[in-house]
Amino acid sequence: MRIGFVGLGNMGGPMCRRFLESGFEVSVYDVNPEALSSLGDTAAEPADNLKALATFADVVLLSLPDSDVVERAVLGDGGLADGLSSGKVLIDTSSSRPSSTRTIAGRLAGEGIEMLDAPISGGVLRAEEGKLAVMVGGKREVFERYYEVFQAFGEKIFHVGDHGAGHLVKSLNNLLSARTLASAAEAVILARKAGIAPETLLEVLNAGNGRSYSTEVKFPRFILNRAFDDGFALDLMAKDLKLALETAAEMDHPKFSGAAVAQLWQAAAAQGYGPEGHASIYAFLENLSGEVDHTQ
Amino acid sequence: MRIGFVGLGNMGGPMCRRFLESGFEVSVYDVNPEALSSLGDTAAEPADNLKALATFADVVLLSLPDSDVVERAVLGDGGLADGLSSGKVLIDTSSSRPSSTRTIAGRLAGEGIEMLDAPISGGVLRAEEGKLAVMVGGKREVFERYYEVFQAFGEKIFHVGDHGAGHLVKSLNNLLSARTLASAAEAVILARKAGIAPETLLEVLNAGNGRSYSTEVKFPRFILNRAFDDGFALDLMAKDLKLALETAAEMDHPKFSGAAVAQLWQAAAAQGYGPEGHASIYAFLENLSGEVDHTQ
Amino acid sequence: MRIGFVGLGNMGGPMCRRFLESGFEVSVYDVNPEALSSLGDTAAEPADNLKALATFADVVLLSLPDSDVVERAVLGDGGLADGLSSGKVLIDTSSSRPSSTRTIAGRLAGEGIEMLDAPISGGVLRAEEGKLAVMVGGKREVFERYYEVFQAFGEKIFHVGDHGAGHLVKSLNNLLSARTLASAAEAVILARKAGIAPETLLEVLNAGNGRSYSTEVKFPRFILNRAFDDGFALDLMAKDLKLALETAAEMDHPKFSGAAVAQLWQAAAAQGYGPEGHASIYAFLENLSGEVDHTQ
Amino acid sequence: MRIGFVGLGNMGGPMCRRFLESGFEVSVYDVNPEALSSLGDTAAEPADNLKALATFADVVLLSLPDSDVVERAVLGDGGLADGLSSGKVLIDTSSSRPSSTRTIAGRLAGEGIEMLDAPISGGVLRAEEGKLAVMVGGKREVFERYYEVFQAFGEKIFHVGDHGAGHLVKSLNNLLSARTLASAAEAVILARKAGIAPETLLEVLNAGNGRSYSTEVKFPRFILNRAFDDGFALDLMAKDLKLALETAAEMDHPKFSGAAVAQLWQAAAAQGYGPEGHASIYAFLENLSGEVDHTQ
Repeated sequence: MRIGFVGLGNMGGPMCRRFLESGFEVSVYDVNPEALSSLGDTAAEPADNLKALATFADVVLLSLPDSDVVERAVLGDGGLADGLSSGKVLIDTSSSRPSSTRTIAGRLAGEGIEMLDAPISGGVLRAEEGKLAVMVGGKREVFERYYEVFQAFGEKIFHVGDHGAGHLVKSLNNLLSARTLASAAEAVILARKAGIAPETLLEVLNAGNGRSYSTEVKFPRFILNRAFDDGFALDLMAKDLKLALETAAEMDHPKFSGAAVAQLWQAAAAQGYGPEGHASIYAFLENLSGEVDHTQ
Repeated sequence: MRIGFVGLGNMGGPMCRRFLESGFEVSVYDVNPEALSSLGDTAAEPADNLKALATFADVVLLSLPDSDVVERAVLGDGGLADGLSSGKVLIDTSSSRPSSTRTIAGRLAGEGIEMLDAPISGGVLRAEEGKLAVMVGGKREVFERYYEVFQAFGEKIFHVGDHGAGHLVKSLNNLLSARTLASAAEAVILARKAGIAPETLLEVLNAGNGRSYSTEVKFPRFILNRAFDDGFALDLMAKDLKLALETAAEMDHPKFSGAAVAQLWQAAAAQGYGPEGHASIYAFLENLSGEVDHTQ
Repeated sequence: MRIGFVGLGNMGGPMCRRFLESGFEVSVYDVNPEALSSLGDTAAEPADNLKALATFADVVLLSLPDSDVVERAVLGDGGLADGLSSGKVLIDTSSSRPSSTRTIAGRLAGEGIEMLDAPISGGVLRAEEGKLAVMVGGKREVFERYYEVFQAFGEKIFHVGDHGAGHLVKSLNNLLSARTLASAAEAVILARKAGIAPETLLEVLNAGNGRSYSTEVKFPRFILNRAFDDGFALDLMAKDLKLALETAAEMDHPKFSGAAVAQLWQAAAAQGYGPEGHASIYAFLENLSGEVDHTQ
Repeated sequence: MRIGFVGLGNMGGPMCRRFLESGFEVSVYDVNPEALSSLGDTAAEPADNLKALATFADVVLLSLPDSDVVERAVLGDGGLADGLSSGKVLIDTSSSRPSSTRTIAGRLAGEGIEMLDAPISGGVLRAEEGKLAVMVGGKREVFERYYEVFQAFGEKIFHVGDHGAGHLVKSLNNLLSARTLASAAEAVILARKAGIAPETLLEVLNAGNGRSYSTEVKFPRFILNRAFDDGFALDLMAKDLKLALETAAEMDHPKFSGAAVAQLWQAAAAQGYGPEGHASIYAFLENLSGEVDHTQ
């Protein structure tokens, strides 16, 4: 099975290396030729352009910034669609917009080309270990046929529904992650104002029904030490929240608490926290509540 | 050590029985004399009034509906304060307002009487087993001196800070519990609209960073089966959220996502879900989003 | 008709002078004796205490900071209730809690004493001119009988409902005022980010259905010139919003947009804008959105 | 000056008739040929297609449902851009997305074609009278050169900024209109629960600083009589709010109160109020707060 890999960024680079290490024949493409150097001394074949890559490969994987870039790469002039043909499959691991994914899948289906959306979560470290979580949307039979592709970079692999369902589930998972983090941050800061140590509050929460991944993992690792080095930029989280809310709005689905939380992340981005780890939402909320950090 | 127990309701009844079973000498009081019958054929001594109970006991425990009732019971005419004297201790296990707790503690301290706030969580079943979680506020030395009192009904016992800190921590734990539940419900309903099974979404969330006590425990036990029989009425949860927000407001502390969520619970109460289990917030949100449940 | 006036602060002082100028016989009281000097060389008779004032007067007016102070002044030991008797009337012009007002009215009614709640709006300048707006709650017949009392300090005088209705209406008016101001501020700042002059946006809004008192009056007078000197402190507005939301919560009434807005005002207070004019919510929102003011 | 008019819907039809009545030479196009019949027995020349219309006209006006339709009509195969040439001008009166407007303007500028965005407000009646409000974005000199075009259908005509500024201002005006309406509705319903007549509350608000276009005009005309016949469908308002929030999100601009309000409109749409007048948000909020309307 020949792999074509498009987009060798923070996540795409390590994911692509996993295919090379697993013995796949791999052709690669990135708009920035320097990105190819991240693959080092490997057997990856640089493709001249997207069409050439699609002509070569049986399976084309995308790891791109957003749906606009994905649409141009697939459907634009000289794009992947020009090189793909019946029987091939396109797998989009980007954090794309579900409605855009359904549009692309519909266009490709007309020519006998299958598509799966397969966004990932887990961060750079897990990408390097091939232990990402993968949420796959599209036909179940296609998912099963290409299961070994997902095994190259994933550990927890889920088929969650039809086209776009993978992108939607990824976005809902991030939304809940952002909400539990902001909620817990507001609670910890309030408690500290009242003279209660953050460690004490977290101990109680984690023993009770107020606990979440954020209180159990993110606070001890990234926030109590004020390192905020979680490896997932606040800007990207804010972008994912916009996506989740736009998708909900397209479906006329009210998301009361989600909408309030999204504004906090946008305000944090507006105040310059964007490039930092998303756990720095805590520092933003601390400032917003007039709380001064005396440890720094 | 002689125990005086005031308030033999859903939680107070089983908590009081634990003292009797542990061999304490116990005097009891409830405004409703019939409540005493819930103790059955035990050695509990009914007190004639609050003052008499306070005169008899070394330690007085309260399990009452709210701060207004607590204030009247302690500071009102013929109240507990009239019978308490230096060296005795008052322990309030109700879900009271932290500012009220600090007021009472201040008044009692003037007469050499100690107070601890010790709200509990865990529900009726755990109360009967003596396995409640207990969040204690007040002086640490007093907490340690009376540790055996908490052991009679508690399993996870935390000293969290000064007077009122127990009540604040209880309230923050409930707030986070309510928020993760409403957030997850909004996400599950949106996913279902998009054709994704609730079970599938929850499986992915629980494997990732979107997980919380609500997704791990409440959804499988009380919501997916549409029983909503969690044993903690939605009305009480709405009341606790009001308390948390009022406390935050007293401290000039903004709680953006918390405030939005609290309105959802108030709207649910306004629409008649109050007496049902609080997990029925899911049914309310389903209705609000125009989603019809086809399984019923 | 003999007037007893309690509380000679920013608003109470000028209101009391209006009674003296209108030829009423007036007895006054303030916990701070120096406040009496604000009345200058007038015929006001300082009362020795609250009971003495109530014994002297036919009508007692209150202008106090909040419901707690009002309750102590009326129902506390040696309070007004001890001097009031059947046929007299108590008028509370403070911004009190409607539920507290109903409690006091109920207690006084038992002894044949009438009560009216009559909060005012309009600021210090209008108080000096006797041109305040007055929102009166209580029995209509009592309102009509004492109409001349309201005429001493009011211009727009409304009877709005039963006990507490005046305080509720005052609080709802403030809530809407705060919401239109914060909403318009968010819009103006967003427009400015997009290169649209605030004056231009306001001109369009005021010609259309986006207009409000805030866009028509507050922006041109207090905000575009960045003076923020509206004379009503942000702290007091934040306090009124808390009151409105607590009242809604007591009635199990959801207030989605109101709750979100209230957090903004609390955050502004937490960041130190409390003592400034409430129009400085604009400066707070500007900062929150990462917008730098280049005019200063 | 020859006019090309695209889109003869509720607003486009009457606007186009104004050009015919003012003596302009007019060519028209609508995807639905039956829409042309709304012009009746006039001198309007139906164009065969978009390109032909653009070749004929000096000024092309669009009145279309949204930015996607506008983009296809202008930039799609056989679209207006194929018939437009240097010196001509395109005027978009639709409620489009500002970022899309800037994209189209940029593409046309490359070929010497000018663009103005000129969304309108005022409803069908004012369209028929030629008395709409018009908010124009684009170069001021182009705006001035084509002022007579706007005079054909507009009464209050504003130049508000560069490309996209007209669409942004329209959207902010609608957002504020929606917010003051929902805020006032929440307040009126709460007051009614407390026994205060809606008319009474509105009288007080309109005499004070809580007033807005919604309290002064919409309540008396469309809500107190429960007709909700304001002529602007709730669905369209919900769509405009989505647009305003997406634009804010693109600019990383937090809109706390706006976001909360938008959810209310989405929930109302989800519950089936979409096709009714947008004033029916009142009926939705009434239901949400558990308030039963006894007048029906």
